[in-house]
Order: sequence, then C-alpha cells, then structure tokens
Amino acid sequence: MRDVHREITNWLEPLGASVTIDAAGNLRGLYSADKANTPRLLIGSHLDTVPNAGAFDGILGVVLAVALLRALDGRRLPFAIEIVGFSDEEGVRFAVPFIGSRAVVGRLEEELLNSQDATGISVRQAIENFGLNPAEIVHARLTDDVCGYLEFHIEQGPVLEKLGLPLAVVDAIAGQSRLEFTFTGRANHAGTTPMDMRFDAVAAAAEWITAVEREARAVAGLVATVGSFAARPGASNVIAGEARLSLDVRHREDAIRHRAVEKLTEEARQISQRRGLSVHSATRLNQPAVAMDSFLSDHAEQAIRNAGCKPYHMASGAGHDAMILAEKVPAAMIFLRTPGGISHDPAESVAVEDVEKAISSGLQLLHQLSSSSEFLTRTRTVRA
Amino acid sequence: MRDVHREITNWLEPLGASVTIDAAGNLRGLYSADKANTPRLLIGSHLDTVPNAGAFDGILGVVLAVALLRALDGRRLPFAIEIVGFSDEEGVRFAVPFIGSRAVVGRLEEELLNSQDATGISVRQAIENFGLNPAEIVHARLTDDVCGYLEFHIEQGPVLEKLGLPLAVVDAIAGQSRLEFTFTGRANHAGTTPMDMRFDAVAAAAEWITAVEREARAVAGLVATVGSFAARPGASNVIAGEARLSLDVRHREDAIRHRAVEKLTEEARQISQRRGLSVHSATRLNQPAVAMDSFLSDHAEQAIRNAGCKPYHMASGAGHDAMILAEKVPAAMIFLRTPGGISHDPAESVAVEDVEKAISSGLQLLHQLSSSSEFLTRTRTVRA
Repeated sequence: MRDVHREITNWLEPLGASVTIDAAGNLRGLYSADKANTPRLLIGSHLDTVPNAGAFDGILGVVLAVALLRALDGRRLPFAIEIVGFSDEEGVRFAVPFIGSRAVVGRLEEELLNSQDATGISVRQAIENFGLNPAEIVHARLTDDVCGYLEFHIEQGPVLEKLGLPLAVVDAIAGQSRLEFTFTGRANHAGTTPMDMRFDAVAAAAEWITAVEREARAVAGLVATVGSFAARPGASNVIAGEARLSLDVRHREDAIRHRAVEKLTEEARQISQRRGLSVHSATRLNQPAVAMDSFLSDHAEQAIRNAGCKPYHMASGAGHDAMILAEKVPAAMIFLRTPGGISHDPAESVAVEDVEKAISSGLQLLHQLSSSSEFLTRTRTVRA
Repeated sequence: MRDVHREITNWLEPLGASVTIDAAGNLRGLYSADKANTPRLLIGSHLDTVPNAGAFDGILGVVLAVALLRALDGRRLPFAIEIVGFSDEEGVRFAVPFIGSRAVVGRLEEELLNSQDATGISVRQAIENFGLNPAEIVHARLTDDVCGYLEFHIEQGPVLEKLGLPLAVVDAIAGQSRLEFTFTGRANHAGTTPMDMRFDAVAAAAEWITAVEREARAVAGLVATVGSFAARPGASNVIAGEARLSLDVRHREDAIRHRAVEKLTEEARQISQRRGLSVHSATRLNQPAVAMDSFLSDHAEQAIRNAGCKPYHMASGAGHDAMILAEKVPAAMIFLRTPGGISHDPAESVAVEDVEKAISSGLQLLHQLSSSSEFLTRTRTVRA
C-alpha cells in the first residue's frame, strides 16, 4: 500500500495536485479549480484487491482518474477534482468490505474499528501500525463542497463483451440477499432403502436448485446462485440426512429480489413437505439496491456518446465504493468491458482501446460538467 | 473381540460344541453329527460392527445360531453344524470388508494381509498381535464336507416393517456400482454473471441428481444414490466451477444395473453438453450380484411358513458374508424385520417376537434338512 501511495503521488504532484493520505489510509489528491469556493468532484476507485487477483479491479479506476488529470494538461476547471484511491474495498483482511469509503461517508464506526484480522490485529491497530492516527478519521469525511463521485471500474462480468460494447453507464447497484438453507431428511443405507422410502436431503436440495435456476431465468435481470453445497454424512453409500446450501439473490429492484427470495423459500418448503423432509432458512445478508444519480448518469451517457461509443445502461451485480458514496453524494459509475468476464483472477484483462475510450468519455464528461450551470450550482450541499 | 470369543465359547461348550479360533480370528464352534462322515452346515454371521453402532448387526446372526444349538438340547442331527462368528465383516479398521469370510473361502491374499490401518499396522501384524499365526490362515478354509451356509441378519432397511412381516428369504445380494462424477464448468461472479452466461457446475449436477432419482424410481428394485456432493470453490457469492458427486447404484440383476449406470452416465454427458460444461466419471466399484442357493432358499421359505409366518422374498441391498461364502458353497440368508429400518446406529433394534420366529424357522429348517436325502447327498463337494 505504501508503494502504491508513493507511485500515485509521484504521478499526481507533477500534474499540480496536492496529495494526502487520510486516517483511513485513502489516498486523496486535490486538483484545485480555476477559482476559490467551487464545488468539488471526486473521481476514484479502490487500491486494494483480492489474493491471486488480476491487475485492473479497482486500481484501473484510480489510474484512469490520474490519466484524466494528465489529459487536462494543467488546465483548471470551474470545479475542483479530488482523486480518491480507497484503501480497503474488498474486505479481505477484516472480512468487512468498504472500509475506505465508509470512512469517507462517516460510517467507520467503533465496532468496525475493533474488527480483527485472522491474527487478532484490529482495524484500529492496523491503522496505527501503518503510521496513521485513528482519532483523525473524522477528518476523512466528505466536506460540504463535494458535489459528486465518479467511478470507472471493470464490469467483472460478460455482458459488455457479449454486446460488443466498450463502456456502460451503471444505473444502479443491485441489492443482495444471502441465505442459508438446510434440508433435513433421514440418513439411511443406500443399498437397503427402496426409492419410495427415502427422505433424501441431497435429492430434495437438487430439486430445489433446479427451481432456483428456473425462477432466476424467468425474471429479467434476476440472478440467483447456489454456490456452496454440503451433504451430511457425505458418504457414497449413505443417503444424506442433511444438505446445507447457500442462496445468493440479486436484482436492481428490491421488491423483485424480495419476491424471488420469498418464492424460493416457499418452493423449498413445498419440496420438503412433499418429500417428508423439513427445511430451515436463515438470512445472512439483506442489502438494498442503490440507485446512481440520474443527472450524472445522463451526462455520463452523453459523454460516452460524444466519445464515439454506443452507451449501454446496466445494473452492477457486484458492490462498489460508489454504492457507499451514494449514501451522501450524487454518484455515477462507468463500466469497462471485461474480456471473458474474468475477474479476481490473474487472467483479468482490459483492452487498451477500451481504456482510451474511457479516458475520452471522462474528458467529455468533465467538459460537459464545466459548462453545466446546473452541476455547478445544484449539488453543493452534501446529502443529509 | 477376545471378550466376545470368551462369551460365546462359554455358551457353546456346555451345548456340546468344540470351539476354536482360526488364524483369521473367526470363531468356529463345531457341533458334530450323530455319526461320522456327514456333511456340515455352517451357520453364522459377523462379530464386529461399526463405530457408534447398534447391538444387532452381525452378532444377532451368531447368537441365533447358538440359540438353535441350545434348542436342539443335545440332540444330534445327520449332519454336523459349525457355528461361525466372522472376525471382520465391516472393514472399518483396514477399509477392506469381509476379511473373516474371505479367509474361509481362501481369498485372504497377500495384498490384503499387507493392507494397513490408519496407524500403519497391517492385517498380518494385527493377526500376530492378537496372538494368531498368519501362516495358518490356509487352515481356516472350507473343508470338503461343508454343504451349505446359513446366515440370519437384520434387514437394515424398512421393507419388512412396511409389509408387516417378521422374516424374509434373501434371494440375491444386489450388485453394486460406485462411481465418481465431476462436472466442470466455469467459476464466476454470482452478481455480475447473467443467468444465460453461466457454466454453473452445481446447477448441472442438481439437474443430473433429479435424473438419477427419476431413473431409479422408474426401474423396479433399482436404487441409486448421490450421497456426497462437493462444490468448488464453494463460496456463496461465486458460481461453482466444479461439482464432484458420488453415485451408488444397486440391483439384483447386473444387466439392469449396468444399463442404469450407462444411462445415467449418458444423461450426465447430455446435461453437461447442453450447458456448455464437461463431465468426467470414474468407476470406483463394480461388484456383481450374487444369487443365494435356490434349494436352501426354498427350504428356508418352507421353514418360515412352517413356523407360522408369511414368507417374503427380497434382494439384499447391502453386502453380507453370505455373498462371500456363496463363491464356494450353497448359501442362504434369512432377514429379520428392522424397526424404522434403522441400522449402524445406537437406535438399531429388533423385536423379541421376531427373534422367536427366526429361531422357530431355523429349527424347522434344520428339521427339514435332516430328512432331505437331497441335502445329505447333493452338496458334499465344495464348488470349484
């Protein structure tokens, strides 16, 4: 993290930005406006990634912001730009994501600061060990002059590639439900128990998984996934008495997501009842969808068009810092096509031409906002 | 094992049987006939069981044999009876079942003697540690006078209970196929990958499990079980790239079993192909069905009827020592009703009345065989 701070600082300072590291470890590079008392636009993404990751998730959005400043070539705009490189978005170390952006919106609470990593080191201790002062986290918060947040990020999915498009405007970040389902039947001998006298938890769970898939395919934009499956006792010659499965459901509209979860829970109940089993479900996560700002998104669409690309609108199935920032300021996201949809993998990639188009779009957007009196006046107050 | 040998010896010797422990640790109690040079009928089952087991699997068949001798009250028959308590049927310690009965049919090979338990002790060493001499295993083999093997055993399944019958004649021991199926798709983000762009190994495997169940339900007497299921990477927010499943298929007719395995393998291939996945299957076990001797089984049926019970014929889905003995001598089995079909569990039980009926049937059978010139002359030669 120190290395990446040093590297980006060495790029930003010659461009006329003043760089600081806030108490949550976020890199903040302020490029002032052509005059005093202007609004401020944040542009950025996160600096961290996952183990065995690729080279683009997160950091590309920060590097793109640096590239935009460089493209300005010293020219100042009627609003300030602050480059943000968030310190911890993935949540790998402390199992809590968005630590950097939560500090910026004022939600890095005591409880989160006390969260420990696998070796017992707390977030607070880690901040101190890095040479920062947790007492100063309050100063990392958004100031009243911030009028928006813009994030470039790789799509991490196959949609744009399939459509043959380089860029997309993200309208919303999908809400997520995560549940655990436990089907309980009766373990029994695989050889001596006839088919019609079984209470097979694996067979019941399998029938339900086909229903999960069918339901998700039937509802536009819905994704539903059973990613983990544990059978007990789990021996080849024993009918399973228990099957424990995860369910992950996402949609940009919370009502549709909740309806799907209800329907799938009811389906699990019906399948179990018909088979003489019982089923229990527990909710692990219920995170609402977050809409991006329509004003900034409309401008982003126009900017993509002005850069010579066909814009596409989509929801993000994954969470992003923009989701957290949107709690306090108008936020917008632009996705870059991800070859093969491959992410969180060393094979993660992005096309140079797509990055060029993203830079062009970003410059168009800065240009549009510079001449938008609505932008320069409407958004100067941070949301309550 | 020493304790059970001592206990049963203390029961058998007062009844006029001479007891030895063969070099494979089997208890052999010879109750001689009313004259010399007669055939010999083996009656028994196994003395061992599984961890956390019940009190009847195996040992009930040995105790029933002792009870038959006791019921004879000193009377000698025109054939000798040898009570056998096999030392290791379950295969818990060395992961190889039927060690005791394999010694009796001459199949306790070098390779098996060299098999090691979890602590590195071989079968050979364990035999020596018990105070026996592995070089003498050859003397454990069936002698030429053995004319049959009779085994009482709990059903370990729910069939007799459902029919309301205490006893069944076992016609055959089902053949078994055990395979491992690996479905390989592509791991991907559960949020960013639309339903129609997934290569979900769990969803493919689930569809196949429903096909396994459907196929087994459609074919009389067929059982097919997926007892283990491992999804990789196995995270709730990641579409599984791999699913590894066991398949256990059993039927009394090998041709039907083989056809089912072929059909299910083909079904896995078709499901995978349609979904853009691949599937690999590996055979772990392919054990043929074993028929019980029709002459002895017909007599067992008549004996059950003479004891006042309605006889029922069924195949055993589980393996038994009788399956091994049948390689060399005519073998027959009688099942006792198992409440709830529960076995290999402390709740395993058997009704006293059912045991009484089993003893009556056994005495009837001994009576019938005593007056059967076919029995006393036809089976004096051990099978090749």
